[in-house]
Amino acid sequence: MTLLLSDADVSAALDAATTVDAMRAALLAAYEGRLVAPPRASAPLRGGRMVLTAGHLTGEWYGFRSYDTFGHPEAEQLVVLHDARTGAVRAIAVGEELGSRRTGGLGGVAVDAMARPDAATLGVIGSGRQAWTQVWATAAVRPLREVTVHSRSAARRETFAARVRDELGIPARAVDEPAAAVAGRDVVVLATTSPTPVLDAADLAPGTHVNTVGFKQRDRAEFGPDLLAAADVLVTDSPAQACAYTPPMLAAEPPYADRLRDLGAVLAGAVPGRTSPEQISVFCSVGLAGTEVFLLDRLVRVSATVV
Amino acid sequence: MTLLLSDADVSAALDAATTVDAMRAALLAAYEGRLVAPPRASAPLRGGRMVLTAGHLTGEWYGFRSYDTFGHPEAEQLVVLHDARTGAVRAIAVGEELGSRRTGGLGGVAVDAMARPDAATLGVIGSGRQAWTQVWATAAVRPLREVTVHSRSAARRETFAARVRDELGIPARAVDEPAAAVAGRDVVVLATTSPTPVLDAADLAPGTHVNTVGFKQRDRAEFGPDLLAAADVLVTDSPAQACAYTPPMLAAEPPYADRLRDLGAVLAGAVPGRTSPEQISVFCSVGLAGTEVFLLDRLVRVSATVV
Repeated sequence: MTLLLSDADVSAALDAATTVDAMRAALLAAYEGRLVAPPRASAPLRGGRMVLTAGHLTGEWYGFRSYDTFGHPEAEQLVVLHDARTGAVRAIAVGEELGSRRTGGLGGVAVDAMARPDAATLGVIGSGRQAWTQVWATAAVRPLREVTVHSRSAARRETFAARVRDELGIPARAVDEPAAAVAGRDVVVLATTSPTPVLDAADLAPGTHVNTVGFKQRDRAEFGPDLLAAADVLVTDSPAQACAYTPPMLAAEPPYADRLRDLGAVLAGAVPGRTSPEQISVFCSVGLAGTEVFLLDRLVRVSATVV
Repeated sequence: MTLLLSDADVSAALDAATTVDAMRAALLAAYEGRLVAPPRASAPLRGGRMVLTAGHLTGEWYGFRSYDTFGHPEAEQLVVLHDARTGAVRAIAVGEELGSRRTGGLGGVAVDAMARPDAATLGVIGSGRQAWTQVWATAAVRPLREVTVHSRSAARRETFAARVRDELGIPARAVDEPAAAVAGRDVVVLATTSPTPVLDAADLAPGTHVNTVGFKQRDRAEFGPDLLAAADVLVTDSPAQACAYTPPMLAAEPPYADRLRDLGAVLAGAVPGRTSPEQISVFCSVGLAGTEVFLLDRLVRVSATVV
């Protein structure tokens, strides 16, 4: 029988440590060629498109995420997990939670692999769902001493800081300037919907690691070329997807493209990550395809063990 | 909250009259341009593809069917219904039943529109799931006096005949030759997986209506050109899809293409269907895209009324 999971079910079943662990395994599987994740497919539907991103972990499962581009604020996505041995549908997740925990988990893997081992302070710009799961996952890989958050809405950034204190038990402050959120921080997260830079790279301390989750394309990016120029190490979760953006992703263009590394290769030890505590490292999150299905499979396995 | 429906749920909720009525409405909506149904989209997954056929009934719903080509005998399909006003997922059907009832329902509409009003005998070649739903739907549009069935397996055709007697209350006989199943019948259904002809058009009585559900392409068809040559009226549920087969559909090639009519146009009264009791009519079923979602929407509405 197929398991149907709501956002509440996903929240209850998937903690941050499990999610980060699953995404680390997914990145390694993709690097080793076991996770097949082709380009997205879509069907035009007059006013919007239905989009499918599929994945296949050889011998284990196949499935897809579906979403649409009609732009409804309450639109729900689907993640569907088929058993690769029988073709049966084992589980379906409906909503947003699995997708944003997936993106948070990828961010957590990046922080774990790239930030200084002693990183303890986190600055966030953005206060939405994506900003939240980045903090949630980062807290699972580093013992955080303080979180600072800025977003344009004072009410939203205060609510976000309160949530960090309440749910994660970490001291947190809302600040009214972006620079105040990121100055002197060990880890910085950009998770906005801004098409223009929200960060001045000069505000970053040496040794900072940055996760960027929002727009990162030419003429539409939440950061400018100054961040890429300041970065000693540049990684992404999918070099193939990074090269397929229209307009192009800043980090996939010269002079940065040659320096953009595969986070999976760093995890596998095939290429170096951070090599000194003074380096600035930047993770360009693109959302490796197939990882939502990977995470749903992990959720089902974890739940089965508990029950 | 999203409704999750199994094959058993679909069977319990969708009777033949409701299904045929929904498919008639879908064919009219497609003819009038309100049902948007683009070509299928697919993603290659090493060893198989994930395929999506989408649909959108303007202002009402959008959604899709997904299936794969890995070839597992127990593979399950999905039909997903989004509310067009909010984007929320209203219902998901998992399995085979909704899809085969959909195809049966389209066949029932064709019989209702094209067979003689006094049609009362039905001959079927094939004894699988598709053959069953064709008989099930036909029984909802004509009071059948007798069903004859042939398939290669004696055990399966006897089981099929018994099911017609038991579930539909119609006298039914299994016969050991295809010709014996179709000779002198008012309605004939071909629902096989055969790539070569199973029917000799010379065995059909004048006035017969034929539904073909299986292969119908050049060099891969359950009937030969003799059936198309014998047909006075040729219809399909989607002229656009009929023209998109590889290899081409027999009825979409010369000299038949010019005579192939849209069943939706016949229903709308825009083109004639059968014009005399002696004519042979043939319905080439291709499975109009979007109709599975249309049927799921109808199922949800009907269930809501009952509860």
